[in-house]
Formats: sequence, structure tokens, C-alpha cells
Amino acid sequence: MSDPLLLGGIEAGGTKFLCAVTDRDGSTLQETRIATTTPAETLGAASSFFRDAQRSHGSLSALSIGSFGPLSLNPLATDHGCITSTPKPFWENVDLLGHFHQTIDAPMTLDTDVNCAAVGERLFGTGQGLDSFAYVTIGTGIGVGLLIGGMPHGGANHPEAGHIKVPRAAGDETFAGICPFHGDCLEGLACGPAMHARWGVPGEQLATDHEAWSIEAEYVAALCATLTYVVRPDRIILGGGVMQPHLYPRVRRALVERLAGYDASMRTIDMDEYVAAPTAGSSAGLSGALAVAYRTATRQWPMHWRAAQSFQMIRESVDA
Amino acid sequence: MSDPLLLGGIEAGGTKFLCAVTDRDGSTLQETRIATTTPAETLGAASSFFRDAQRSHGSLSALSIGSFGPLSLNPLATDHGCITSTPKPFWENVDLLGHFHQTIDAPMTLDTDVNCAAVGERLFGTGQGLDSFAYVTIGTGIGVGLLIGGMPHGGANHPEAGHIKVPRAAGDETFAGICPFHGDCLEGLACGPAMHARWGVPGEQLATDHEAWSIEAEYVAALCATLTYVVRPDRIILGGGVMQPHLYPRVRRALVERLAGYDASMRTIDMDEYVAAPTAGSSAGLSGALAVAYRTATRQWPMHWRAAQSFQMIRESVDA
Repeated sequence: MSDPLLLGGIEAGGTKFLCAVTDRDGSTLQETRIATTTPAETLGAASSFFRDAQRSHGSLSALSIGSFGPLSLNPLATDHGCITSTPKPFWENVDLLGHFHQTIDAPMTLDTDVNCAAVGERLFGTGQGLDSFAYVTIGTGIGVGLLIGGMPHGGANHPEAGHIKVPRAAGDETFAGICPFHGDCLEGLACGPAMHARWGVPGEQLATDHEAWSIEAEYVAALCATLTYVVRPDRIILGGGVMQPHLYPRVRRALVERLAGYDASMRTIDMDEYVAAPTAGSSAGLSGALAVAYRTATRQWPMHWRAAQSFQMIRESVDA
Repeated sequence: MSDPLLLGGIEAGGTKFLCAVTDRDGSTLQETRIATTTPAETLGAASSFFRDAQRSHGSLSALSIGSFGPLSLNPLATDHGCITSTPKPFWENVDLLGHFHQTIDAPMTLDTDVNCAAVGERLFGTGQGLDSFAYVTIGTGIGVGLLIGGMPHGGANHPEAGHIKVPRAAGDETFAGICPFHGDCLEGLACGPAMHARWGVPGEQLATDHEAWSIEAEYVAALCATLTYVVRPDRIILGGGVMQPHLYPRVRRALVERLAGYDASMRTIDMDEYVAAPTAGSSAGLSGALAVAYRTATRQWPMHWRAAQSFQMIRESVDA
């Protein structure tokens, strides 16, 4: 007879921390939503939530955190577990994992928000049945999670594919880009705030025939082409606030042009399947974190969970 | 008592096929070098070599091929095992794996030449002890092999990271590039023949202070930056004829500038270790193929092989 499992998950975002505790079947026992203010306030409230939950339900079998970053994920690094060079006020060099290690007694994992969302898509969404795929979110920033061989990929640290450099799109020769580190890297040219800065209004206010969208499609296709050439995933899942429905066909067309028939396996692929929208819902990141906690506790994925959790606290789409 | 192992390996290159048969300890029993002419002639000679070896030594336990490409590696594809869109005369759509399946009775694997060389570097060279690294060769073309989690990486097909697009290097605004598919993709701008086409002489004839080398360093650094951002390998091994010793420090400097301090883990890394030369020797590709054959036959890597084989037939550096 096995002990009852009690799983903790956190989706740590730039505007809110979503925290939940579930049982072995992924059923929610307790959940909360905490505004991201200062580290002391936000992390303190998160710890209190899990300590409360432990008093009510018993010891956590595992706690898994999917966080905005960049993160230090190399276990040998002196800053392991920290949020590192984020431009977000107060959060640079915050020891995220250390905080929870000091306040909660449970096996713990930390990964990127996008890798956790990729796990959510793998189990409940557009990544089902796939060994290797990329999960991309294009919103406040551009983040890329990778599953390779069914596992979230991280090497000595985690991918940051939003920061690649790509050639300028036609018609976009002068905009300086907004990345505080690289200026006109892909994120600096093509994330939501970059669209806002270039056109003076948020992307969602631009008509679907505005030239902004053909430029945006070129940049997203450039990312998809690079992911295709570097890792050749089985699929590229594109989500985030910028990815409005009319953008997908444009991205697919621009990607086909860029690939130029080089890779024979890409000539016959169904582009509607290769470049696809996420379908695990706005709680994919938190569900993915809970699934990682399940795996930490059992060494298996929770294949009996049939859908991403519907958490009460999630009322809008997840931060990008 | 186990059966004696008999391992076959092929390094299939654009100018020559290197074929060898070894025992369980990696000791060479028979080897040959076959010029790459027409598929009928070259593949026929290779099959004859292995059939001869089988008559002398017994059945092959496994045969592993590391080949130039692009290759179709998806087992579900109708052209699985074929060389696909190569510009090399006579070799487009040649069913490489099919040929050996029809002529030799042994378990067989096919992977890219660069993935096999990466295995060679993992076991005997600069990749020792690393879980995830990139092996790059810059010569006739630009090829990238990836080991992820200790295994050669291939998704639905194999990476072709030489064909990514990167912004033009300063001073290189007008050269059209020579890639027959993409024109000015990275390979089109920065492989050996591209240097030759741009400057009128082979790269090795250009003085080390020629502007060609700062342009080349920018392009190689652009590839390293993209690999860093997309897969964050533990190391990038740069080999091939273009990678002359004076180019490494330039590439490292250009890479540091490009990363711009964004990823904290990259600020403290030793760049001399992160961007390094291959050390497994010119037979790394063939040794890697034989190691893959060992793994196919035993499900283990030949950790008792202490060095890459010195084959008599290898007298110059391996094709890029």
C-alpha cells in the first residue's frame, strides 16, 4: 500500500503566482492566486499557502515550480535556483528555490514556465503523443520550452531561444528593438511590447491587414525555421497573446518560403499540424508543474490525468 | 558466454567512404577506403568489403553508417534511409540504408556524419564526460551534430543547423551566398567554398589578419550564439578545415559580445572550454559509427575503448 500522494505546483509569472495542491489523481485540494509584487511579499504568501495546505492534508510528496526567468538551473552553480538577469524590478538575483527549500520540507524541482507549459501540452494538449516538440509563447516576452525524448530539455542551463538574432524583416529596417540586453534580438523585435513600441498601440488594436502582421509573421517564421534547423522538433506549438488566429496561416506560409524545400521531410509535412496552437488551456503551465511534481514523487508521468486542471483562480490567459 | 561481437562502421563522405570492421574491443580486423564516385560503384564496393569481412570473420553483430546528407531518418517516411536533397551529382534520392539492407544481413543504423563524429568526441575527445554538446564542422559545408542526454539527437529528422539564417556580418553586405537552396544562409555565407567564392582563393591562403577572418568569426559566433540560446549545450566543439587555430579566440570574443551578459550562467563560464576544438582525431566519425554499432548490438556504449581507432586508411582530415 502506497502513501497518499500530495502534489504541489507553482506557476510563477511576472504578474501572478498560481499555486495549487492536488492529490494523486490531479484533483485540486487547495489553490490560490498571489499577485507578483515584491519577492518577500509574494514568496512569503506562497510559502504560507503550502504550509497551510500541509496542515490540512499532510506532507507534500513533491513541489514543482515553473517560473519566469532567466533561471540558474545548473545544480553546480553558486546561484542555482535563482532568477538571474530579469529586468523585472526587485526580482533580479532572487533565490527562488532557496526560499522554498528554507520554508517547506519536500522534494523540489525548478524549471522554466515554458518547459512546464510544454509538459502540460504533452499530457493534455497539442503535444500529445509527441517525443520532441517546441512550445513557444509570444507575449510579454518570447519564451521557448523544449521537450526532447519526452523530457523537458535543459542542458547546463535552460534554452532562451527568444533571444536569437535573425535578419530584419522587409519593412522593419529602422526600429531599434526593445531587449535591454540585445536591442534587436528576436524578442526585442517581435514580443508584444515590441509591437506596441513600434506601432504606438498594442498589437491587438492593429487591423488584421496592417503591415505589422506580415512583419510579425516573418519574425515568428524565422524562429520556427531556426528551431526546425537546430532541433527538428516533431511540432512547434505557438501560443501567447500575440499569436492571434489570423497569424498562424501567415507564419506557416512564411516558414515554407524560408525552408525553400531544402529538407525533404519538411516538403511533405502537414504545416497545419507542424505549426499549431496550444490546446491544453490557460492552466497548462500549472498543470505541467503538478505533473512534474507527480513525476518527481513517482518517477512516472501521470498518464491517468485526462485533462489539464480547471483551476478556479485562472480567469484569463497565462502570462507570456 | 557471449557470442563474439563483430562490428561494422561506415563513414560515408562526399569524397570517400571509410569502412571498417572491428572486434568487441574496437580493434580493427579489416578496413578500406573507397572513393565516392557513383552510388552503384561506391555502394557496391562497400557491400563487397563487408561481405568479404563476414566470410573471414563471421556475421556482423551490427553495422552503423554515419553519412553526409541531408538524410531521411524518420522510420515512417517513404524515403526513410535515403540521402535526399544533396547537390552532389548522382547522390540525390539514393537509398543508402536500403542498399545495405539488401546486400548485408545485420542490424543496421543510419545517422548523420556529424552525429557519429559527436559520439566519437563524446567517447574519446573533447566531449568526454558531457551530457549535452554540439559538434560543429565548418568545411565543405556546415554541419552540426547534437548529443542530448548522452544520445545523438534526431527528432522527426535530423538537425541541419548549418542552414539557419543570421544577420549579415559588418563588411559582408553584398556577397550573395552560395547555398543552392537558401543563398545566404549561414552555410551559404560561411562554409569553406563560400570563403573561396567571396575572396577568390581558399581560406587557408588568406593571411590571418585578412578581414575575411573577422567576418568568418562573426558568422561562426552567430551559430554558437544560436546553439547556446536554443539548446544551451554544455560545450560547442568546432572542427572542420575552416577552423584554423587563430579563429577560435576571435569566435570566443565575438560570442561573448553577442551574448551581452544576458544569461548569467554564460558570464562565468570558461569560454576556452565552452568553445573548443575536437581532439578525437580524424577518425572520430568512423570510430563513432563503430561505437554506435557496439551500442546497437549490446545496448551499451563501449566505455572500455580508450581512444579513437587509428585507421591506416585515414591519412588526411575528415571531410566536412
